[in-house]
Order: sequence, then structure tokens, then C-alpha cells
Amino acid sequence: MRTRAAVAFEAGKPLVVTEVELEGPKAGEVLVEIKATGLCHTDEFTRSGADPEGMFPAILGHEGAGVVVEVGAGVKSVKPGDHVIPLYTPECRECEYCLNPKTNLCQAIRATQGQGLMPDGTSRFRTLDGDPILHYMGCSTFSNFTVLPEIAVAKIREDAPFDKVCYIGCGVTTGVGAVINTAKAEPGCRAVVFGLGGIGLNVLQGLRLIGADQIVGVDLNPAKREMAERFGMTDFVNPAEVEGDLVPYLVNLTKGGADYTFDCTGNVNVMRTALECCHKGWGESIIIGVAPAGAEISTRPFQLVTGRSWRGTAFGGARGRTDVPKIVDWYMDGKIEIDPMITHQLTLDEINHGFDLMHEGKSIRSVVVY
Amino acid sequence: MRTRAAVAFEAGKPLVVTEVELEGPKAGEVLVEIKATGLCHTDEFTRSGADPEGMFPAILGHEGAGVVVEVGAGVKSVKPGDHVIPLYTPECRECEYCLNPKTNLCQAIRATQGQGLMPDGTSRFRTLDGDPILHYMGCSTFSNFTVLPEIAVAKIREDAPFDKVCYIGCGVTTGVGAVINTAKAEPGCRAVVFGLGGIGLNVLQGLRLIGADQIVGVDLNPAKREMAERFGMTDFVNPAEVEGDLVPYLVNLTKGGADYTFDCTGNVNVMRTALECCHKGWGESIIIGVAPAGAEISTRPFQLVTGRSWRGTAFGGARGRTDVPKIVDWYMDGKIEIDPMITHQLTLDEINHGFDLMHEGKSIRSVVVY
Repeated sequence: MRTRAAVAFEAGKPLVVTEVELEGPKAGEVLVEIKATGLCHTDEFTRSGADPEGMFPAILGHEGAGVVVEVGAGVKSVKPGDHVIPLYTPECRECEYCLNPKTNLCQAIRATQGQGLMPDGTSRFRTLDGDPILHYMGCSTFSNFTVLPEIAVAKIREDAPFDKVCYIGCGVTTGVGAVINTAKAEPGCRAVVFGLGGIGLNVLQGLRLIGADQIVGVDLNPAKREMAERFGMTDFVNPAEVEGDLVPYLVNLTKGGADYTFDCTGNVNVMRTALECCHKGWGESIIIGVAPAGAEISTRPFQLVTGRSWRGTAFGGARGRTDVPKIVDWYMDGKIEIDPMITHQLTLDEINHGFDLMHEGKSIRSVVVY
Repeated sequence: MRTRAAVAFEAGKPLVVTEVELEGPKAGEVLVEIKATGLCHTDEFTRSGADPEGMFPAILGHEGAGVVVEVGAGVKSVKPGDHVIPLYTPECRECEYCLNPKTNLCQAIRATQGQGLMPDGTSRFRTLDGDPILHYMGCSTFSNFTVLPEIAVAKIREDAPFDKVCYIGCGVTTGVGAVINTAKAEPGCRAVVFGLGGIGLNVLQGLRLIGADQIVGVDLNPAKREMAERFGMTDFVNPAEVEGDLVPYLVNLTKGGADYTFDCTGNVNVMRTALECCHKGWGESIIIGVAPAGAEISTRPFQLVTGRSWRGTAFGGARGRTDVPKIVDWYMDGKIEIDPMITHQLTLDEINHGFDLMHEGKSIRSVVVY
């Protein structure tokens, strides 16, 4: 079949919206009509050429929602008409990782997904000239129709609006999940969140959800304050306005150090601050942000020997097929908010404008609605 | 009263065995006759002058066992005749730290202990000329008699031999506790232990105790192998004999990476290796070794984002008054071994020879018996 898609032909170039050929689902795969997709910094990281593992040509996009149109042989967990969210971290429920409760990093299709291919080692996308186009993070939601492995779709309720819950495919789950699944933060805790962009706001509302007592937000941009307060921030800190070292300031503000801190910046210096403002004895710092290639974190080991822990999270520690439908329920029940974070709605033809908005800091999330 | 003690008058100089004046216990303190004390690397770290927080003159030693001789006003938990192990990490059971199950770092007397003083801000030790001598780590077990806060003694059974269980005052608890309390390692796990000295051997036997499937020991000295195997090591790796990078070698040996790794070297480069040979998704690396002043650990944050955790431990995460008596029981029941690690027994007059043996790598533990 043919479908419209935004294709990244070359690193650093704008996406090209065009028709492409899409082969139907093979065994264990599903064809999904994407109804809406968010534009995430990770897409831009790859599009720009900064991602050392980026491959081209590819159809980017990994934060979508849509409807199953057709299923391949042997697919049992979804059927045509089911509403789904694509999962860049699949959940096979059979591999060593899925069977270990300490991790969500299903490895069932890791190798081929990393190469931009479906599990059989081929791509379903081609140009109209017949040249292959790679998949991206196993999702390629910048195409109106896409093919996904069955283990990479989460079935969700049918009354959930696509143009909002698509954000659960990455940003919401990453932020809320970091609090719930990775930190397992408890009611009454004190936390500090570094970086109040799309991920940081979701960490804030995750902390609000679990009943944190103090939720400190740290950002150099004072314009972030209003929205962050809406999502549960209790204290705003602009490092540019703090005299002296930020660590003792934050330790003092949190009455001895934070129980949990979250880096949503990808800046390795901020990651160090996030660790060191944790409470002696038990504070845990969770790295969410993706650092530039080759960048390293460092600290004195004394920070760890005196009881702080340094950890990280991917996709919020969520097992997608199990956890994503729950988060959709939480949204529908009003336990978490998404609508105010979807600041821009675009057509597929306007997708490059969405990346401009991201760079200009004007958007929290731009969503393309097909 | 007067007591014989080995006094560190100056950094870098041999200890001087001499008589000193010891004031009796004040309220909340106990006078203990030390029957035996181990010589730990931490004592030598301070004696040598390498410890930036070292203060002189002081009576070092923090790994002892003895008998309560007299108690000060208000002391209820021990009485004269009780056998005890001094605790450099006390357990007041009342402070914010003691009341938080995530930590063992009781802070009740932290400030004064760090200054070499008893909780009232004074020292009980003086030279015969009347000049004050500082306490060390709240213990000063290099004195035949010493005064300790009540919260800094663990009451133990009376049939336990002082010249063996004194080692539970630091090394045994640090190593075994790192496995049990900090890592909370499970039966069937795979682990790697870096550095097979006195702490490393105790990590090995902690892993054996909890039923680890694979216990890899890493040391540059092949002479460590035999004793390490006696304490549970299943695989020995000499980095000098490994071609190429040690990390992939250890990942392969542990079939994907270790569930738990322990640094007992204090070398920050080894700490990095220990983290990076952890299993993706769930591996945890525990820092036990004390690094040189100013040294920093580093890694790419990707190591954490993909599920490894970096942590540390002090005194094996043990709450001394509660946990030390249990470890004494384990020794008496044969669940853990100590005897083969006590390689040398010395008199107090021979104490400087014990540090020579340490430097020459000839001892695992030298114990002074009074």
C-alpha cells in the first residue's frame, strides 16, 4: 500500500513529506493507522545528525497512537479496530529481561530494531522508486500507516483521544514512570527535578500523584515556572539567581537533601549536582536525560559510600503492554494531566515547523494529527 | 586511671606504646577493657598522614572486642562484665537516620566523633603530662582500656573469642554486610569482587552465605587465589593475564554481566570497571573501598540509563548494636569463618610491626591481643 510519511533522507536536513510504499504485516506484526504523533527531542536528536547511531533514510517518530488495521499470521493479542500505542521498548513477556522484575528493557527484538529493521531483518518501507527506508525505534510514527511487531503495541481503551494519549507513548510514561517504577518514590518524600521541559513536567506530576511533600523544580528559564507549578512544583529554583554553589542551596532547601532527584537535562554537570544534593544515607538520583555522545558523569566516591545511589531509567521503567494502558486510564480518570502540555497541533505537512518550535522553546509538545 | 596505649603523636611516625591517663565514663558512657584489636587499613591511612581528616595526637584502632568494666550514669543497655564490640558507626535508635530503614549512618554523635571527642566535646585521654589525646572513630581500641558512648557498643555472647570476633568490629561486617544489607544479593546471583584483601574475602564469604551461583574474584596478585577459594570464590581473574579490555571479559564470564559487583580496592578506575561489568537492566555495583582524597569516579551516563546502579556502603550497611551480635552468632555457628584470616597475633609492643606486615602484603589481619 501507499502512505504519506515525513522521511528523513539525510542527517541535518528537513523531513520530506511524501508518499512511500508500505508492505503489509508479516507473521507476528500489525499494521497500524497512526492518528496522532508527538515530536520528541529524541527524534530531533537523530534528525539533526547528533545521534551517533542515527541511520538514514528513515521514517522517524516514536510517540504515537492509532488503530490496528490488519494483523499478520499468529497475532493474538490485538485485532483490527483495536486502539493502540506503539512501544519503542517492547514487552515480549518471554525474554530474560521481561522475566526479571528489576528491568523493563525487553531484548526480544533489540538487534533488528537498532538497525532500523523489523524482526525478520527487513524493512516494510520503500520509496516509490523501490529503495528501502529504515524504521526508527521500531515505531516510525511519522508515517500515517506503519507496521509494528505485536509485542510493540499496547492496547488501550477506545474512548481515549489520540491527539493527547499519543504523548503517553514516550514523554508522559518516561517522566511519571521514573517516579513510580524506577525511584518507587513514597508519599511524603522531598524531590528535586532538574529541567522543566516535557519530561520534567511529567516527573513533577508523577511526584504529585504519589503524594510527595516537596517538589522542587530547577530551570534556568523563569518562564517555565507557571506551567511547572500547574503540574505540582512547590518550589522553583533558578540557578542563575543562586549565589554560590547550588548543591548546599538545594540541600538546605530540602532540609538535609532530597530523597529523590531527577535529571531531565542530559547535561552531565547537572547530573552531578542532582546526585550531590541527595540526602546522605538514602538519597537516590535518577538520570533520565540523554547526554551528548562521549560525555561522562563524575563525582567523588564518598558521595556513594555515604549512602547516595546513582541510577538511570529508560521509558520510565515501564513495561509497555502492561503499564501504558494503566497510564491512559489515569489520564482519563483525571489523575494525571496531558492537555496543557500539548501546546501545538500540526498537520503532517507542518512537521518541520514543529521542530522549529522545539528549538525556539515555544512548545512543550507539538503533536501532528493525521 | 592509667592504661597502656599505642599513641599516634604525629602523622607518618610510628605509634608510641606508653602509659596514658584515662578518665572514667561520664553519663551515657562505658569503660571497656579491650581484650583484642585488629589493625585495619583505615588506621594506617590515618597514621600515615594520607587521611586529610586525620588529627593528632590520637589513639587509633577501631576494630576491637572487650569487657565492660564500669558504666556511667544512665547507662542501661550494658553492665560491668558484659562482652562488647566497639562501634565506630553507633546506633542510637532515635535519630532521623536510625529511624529510616534505608540507612545505618546514625548521626547522633557524628560531629564530636569526627573531632576525636566524646559526645560532651571533651577527650577522656591525656598524656601523663596532662595534655589531651584525641579519640579515634569513637573507639581508640589501641588502648587497653577505653571509654565509649553506650550507643557505640554492641553486646555480644560471652563464649565468643575476643581475638577472633574483634574482626567483626570492622572488616567482617563491612564485607559480609555489603552483600546482605546493602546489595541484598539473592541466592543464585552472579557476582564479581575486586580486590581480595581482608574486605574482599569477607565479601566472598557473604556471597557464599547467601547462596550466590558464581563468585568471581579479581586481583593482580595470584597468591590471593588459594585463600579466596577457601572463602567461596568460584572463578579467579588476574587482570594482568587478560588480553584486551577487562569489562567484556568479565561480562562474558558472568554470562551477560554480574548481578552484583563490589569494589574493595579504593581505586577509582577499578570502580568504573566494577560498574561497567554489571548486567544491563539490573546490575548493581557497590563501592566499599576508600579512594584517595580528591579522586573521582566517572562513566558514561548510558551505563546507568540502561539499568545499572552505582551505590556505596559503610560498615556494610549494618546497624551495629542490632547486627553485630548476629554476625558473632554466625561465626560461632560456623556460618562464616574468621580464623584463617587472622594471620598474625601480636602484643601491643609489636603493633608497629603489624603495619609493616600490612605493607609487605604478608598479613590478611594482624590482631593485637592485650
